[in-house]
Amino acid sequence: MFISFEGIDGSGKSTQIKLLQEKLESFGKTVVSLREPGGTELSEKIRELLLHKDYDLNSETELLLFESARAYLTNTIIIPSLQSGKVVLTDRFFDSTIAYQGYGRGLDLDFIDKCNLFATQGIEPDITFYLKINMNTSNERRIMNTKDRIEKSGLEFYQKVISGFDNIAINNPKRVVTINAENSISTIHDEIMEIVNKMMVLKQN
Amino acid sequence: MFISFEGIDGSGKSTQIKLLQEKLESFGKTVVSLREPGGTELSEKIRELLLHKDYDLNSETELLLFESARAYLTNTIIIPSLQSGKVVLTDRFFDSTIAYQGYGRGLDLDFIDKCNLFATQGIEPDITFYLKINMNTSNERRIMNTKDRIEKSGLEFYQKVISGFDNIAINNPKRVVTINAENSISTIHDEIMEIVNKMMVLKQN
Repeated sequence: MFISFEGIDGSGKSTQIKLLQEKLESFGKTVVSLREPGGTELSEKIRELLLHKDYDLNSETELLLFESARAYLTNTIIIPSLQSGKVVLTDRFFDSTIAYQGYGRGLDLDFIDKCNLFATQGIEPDITFYLKINMNTSNERRIMNTKDRIEKSGLEFYQKVISGFDNIAINNPKRVVTINAENSISTIHDEIMEIVNKMMVLKQN
Repeated sequence: MFISFEGIDGSGKSTQIKLLQEKLESFGKTVVSLREPGGTELSEKIRELLLHKDYDLNSETELLLFESARAYLTNTIIIPSLQSGKVVLTDRFFDSTIAYQGYGRGLDLDFIDKCNLFATQGIEPDITFYLKINMNTSNERRIMNTKDRIEKSGLEFYQKVISGFDNIAINNPKRVVTINAENSISTIHDEIMEIVNKMMVLKQN
């Protein structure tokens, strides 16, 4: 079982992943929890390059670095983990590239799809939880964090990213579940567990 | 003027680039000499990841890392240098990706072309010198060097790469000039200078 979490910064992805991981482990599942970009030594090094404040990365370089990290993570961790029956949870996966680099930066969506397919070797999540919040909530929740390069991109950029995620949800109704992430942590967790429980029953049958 | 040098390891690219740079500088040209992957702080870091012996890079990751480094080098150095009238010499450019990752590793050539176009923003060399040597010469010349990850790939791989470069030359007769790099350093340099001199005359008219 492969589950990805998507949404803009401050949407609570890491909190929900932690809660889901604990719940699944209490059911006896082995859970591998990853973040993108990152999740391996090499991918974390690529993450450092991406978030580094001194490099003036053009959008093309940014996209290709994200895809490099994804290609490595998919090949070394995700595919082997799924093959050995583990549950894989990821904080972001290819939808983030469509939303940020495609809708946000305006790069060609067809080319991004081709890159995603190439990097992931065709693997896609069984389900994607899109934790949807509005800009104000994101800003309030992020106020405590130091801003990295990508987070400095401004309001207009983030509005495009949000509409990107909205479109991805519309275009992939079977895979992507939109969750109102303005709600409380426990409400969101309950909603996620309801869907994951149904999936586990389906997978067992 | 943008000139790339291609060929397998040991073909003498860096020697010829050095000689060409000195000659062009003696004519009063400003020359920017680069190597791929590398040529910028970020691209050199990507180069380290690519050549690192401990990472078991799959071919997809390898391709995307090469393209990331190229995208950054193109945007930060090559395009600005050409715009300001400098001569740019590169030790490898997109043909190496076609030869090594396409013909050598067997990745999809159409996808590689799309990546190359995306990473370079459509910029291509005015001329490419393909320094052609056979496997034995390459092995003899490389015997003194420590072998990095990519160079350890074996004989069969290198034969595919050579046929890749041969095909690239056939498919791009206007841009790619094949040079017999079994010849002496000075013979090769003279051959290169004859072509570069003609190009400079053409560019001036």
